[in-house]
Amino acid sequence: MTVFEPSNPDYATEVRLRFRQQPYNLAIGAEITDVRPGQVEMVLPARADLIQHNGYFHGGLIAGLADIAGGFAGWSLVAADQGMLTIEYKLNIVAPGQGHRLRAVGDVISRGRSIIVTRIDVFGEKNGQDNLCATALQTLKVMTLPPELQGAQTAG
Amino acid sequence: MTVFEPSNPDYATEVRLRFRQQPYNLAIGAEITDVRPGQVEMVLPARADLIQHNGYFHGGLIAGLADIAGGFAGWSLVAADQGMLTIEYKLNIVAPGQGHRLRAVGDVISRGRSIIVTRIDVFGEKNGQDNLCATALQTLKVMTLPPELQGAQTAG
Amino acid sequence: MTVFEPSNPDYATEVRLRFRQQPYNLAIGAEITDVRPGQVEMVLPARADLIQHNGYFHGGLIAGLADIAGGFAGWSLVAADQGMLTIEYKLNIVAPGQGHRLRAVGDVISRGRSIIVTRIDVFGEKNGQDNLCATALQTLKVMTLPPELQGAQTAG
Amino acid sequence: MTVFEPSNPDYATEVRLRFRQQPYNLAIGAEITDVRPGQVEMVLPARADLIQHNGYFHGGLIAGLADIAGGFAGWSLVAADQGMLTIEYKLNIVAPGQGHRLRAVGDVISRGRSIIVTRIDVFGEKNGQDNLCATALQTLKVMTLPPELQGAQTAG
Repeated sequence: MTVFEPSNPDYATEVRLRFRQQPYNLAIGAEITDVRPGQVEMVLPARADLIQHNGYFHGGLIAGLADIAGGFAGWSLVAADQGMLTIEYKLNIVAPGQGHRLRAVGDVISRGRSIIVTRIDVFGEKNGQDNLCATALQTLKVMTLPPELQGAQTAG
Repeated sequence: MTVFEPSNPDYATEVRLRFRQQPYNLAIGAEITDVRPGQVEMVLPARADLIQHNGYFHGGLIAGLADIAGGFAGWSLVAADQGMLTIEYKLNIVAPGQGHRLRAVGDVISRGRSIIVTRIDVFGEKNGQDNLCATALQTLKVMTLPPELQGAQTAG
Repeated sequence: MTVFEPSNPDYATEVRLRFRQQPYNLAIGAEITDVRPGQVEMVLPARADLIQHNGYFHGGLIAGLADIAGGFAGWSLVAADQGMLTIEYKLNIVAPGQGHRLRAVGDVISRGRSIIVTRIDVFGEKNGQDNLCATALQTLKVMTLPPELQGAQTAG
Repeated sequence: MTVFEPSNPDYATEVRLRFRQQPYNLAIGAEITDVRPGQVEMVLPARADLIQHNGYFHGGLIAGLADIAGGFAGWSLVAADQGMLTIEYKLNIVAPGQGHRLRAVGDVISRGRSIIVTRIDVFGEKNGQDNLCATALQTLKVMTLPPELQGAQTAG
């Protein structure tokens, strides 16, 4: 894994704050469990309304979690007045997402001035075992935050 | 657009039933508005817990809706004892998803014996205007349903 | 199809010139057959060293042709001092690429200030029939050309 | 990295034979440098007709090399009467492909009975340094070879 130098020394606080500002993240019950420069780990505990009739996590949640984990992995590297926009991603579902929770790890694999590329693996945790259920490749755009959203981390 | 012949004459009933069997679909409030052979249209009305702090639909919902619309477009073409598995998709977010609802149209563009490929466009509807917010390309696998799930449409 | 207004009135000359500047394009024998604002059509005639042992065009050529067709569709819309970089694309091979030539049509589906998204269909032409063999979704970045490459169309 | 058990004990011979049967691979000058169960490494030396006017490898070659490396990584795991079909892949170009040769490493990340998913990294080698220029995520379909193509490795 490449070692990245964050542009914002408060990157971890910033990532956690930005995460909480998105109602969808909280609505599905996602949590950030680790933030490092260029890497974010998240979990999504199972819940009755998040699963399909067969007990598997719905693909929309797997995709959403992957998108968030990759997006914040990118966000951890940019300056305090910058944020991330998802341009696109591709997701392979390789197994049903099942277990007591999903775990996603997003890693930056290329950091450009305006474009960041991440790779995300999503696992289902079941009986103490971690099974890969999806893997994604994501392209992010670095954007300058509008003034009213900058410096938000000081209010976190 | 290619014109497809459905394998199951009750394809529309089948698609609507399978859709209702997935709690996630109902939890987010998605609805099927049209089913044709190889094409499914869906909508997702805006709701406070589905949006981000800026009022846009979260990307995870756009992806989930695209995945469903494409998946059921494929499902409309297969036999009564068959179903669809999403192998993978790629989604480009081209504009924020905003407005009073999202609308997704999934179209089959290639129908093989074991692999179906679909294209999905997602629009935000705002002030009577339809704006493309995302487009996706999806690969589906045709699977034979386990016996306990077959013929389910008669019980719908 | 969206109708686009080109930024450069000489867009067609520019596209054809840029195409000829890439030795690979000429080496494989690709030709541009049509240029419109936001749309480029190309063909690649069959040749012994471009095919596999079964007589099909190799996937690398299908991908390369798709990439070029989409890239120049984007290039047709930008200013004279701008060019295109391929950020990424996803390609579905839906049938073997066979026949006396491949034909690719690239269409811009979203035009941003810095990001352009295109869709490309590739067909095999055989016995007067056009068969879809691949479809792609591509993300391009608008870049400012270095001074020594600008205004190149006047030297074409 | 997952450790895979090959279905065919002669997997390495088989992969090298299948590679040589594709005229395109030889035409561009690609070579297989390593074959392991679930992993294939390839190189593509620079050549005047393979590069663009700026001296970079053309994107079509990077894609083609990635496709081959992933495809044969999958092929290394299947039975002697089976082969690989590329269903689709997504490729991010993260830097220009430059140097005296390209090197691609394809790795199987998920092995199903009918679907295999691979990840491929492509590097440009320049002045003894290895620079990531592209990364891809690929979906392969396991197919049964037609009788006339089976057992071909004994004829290699």
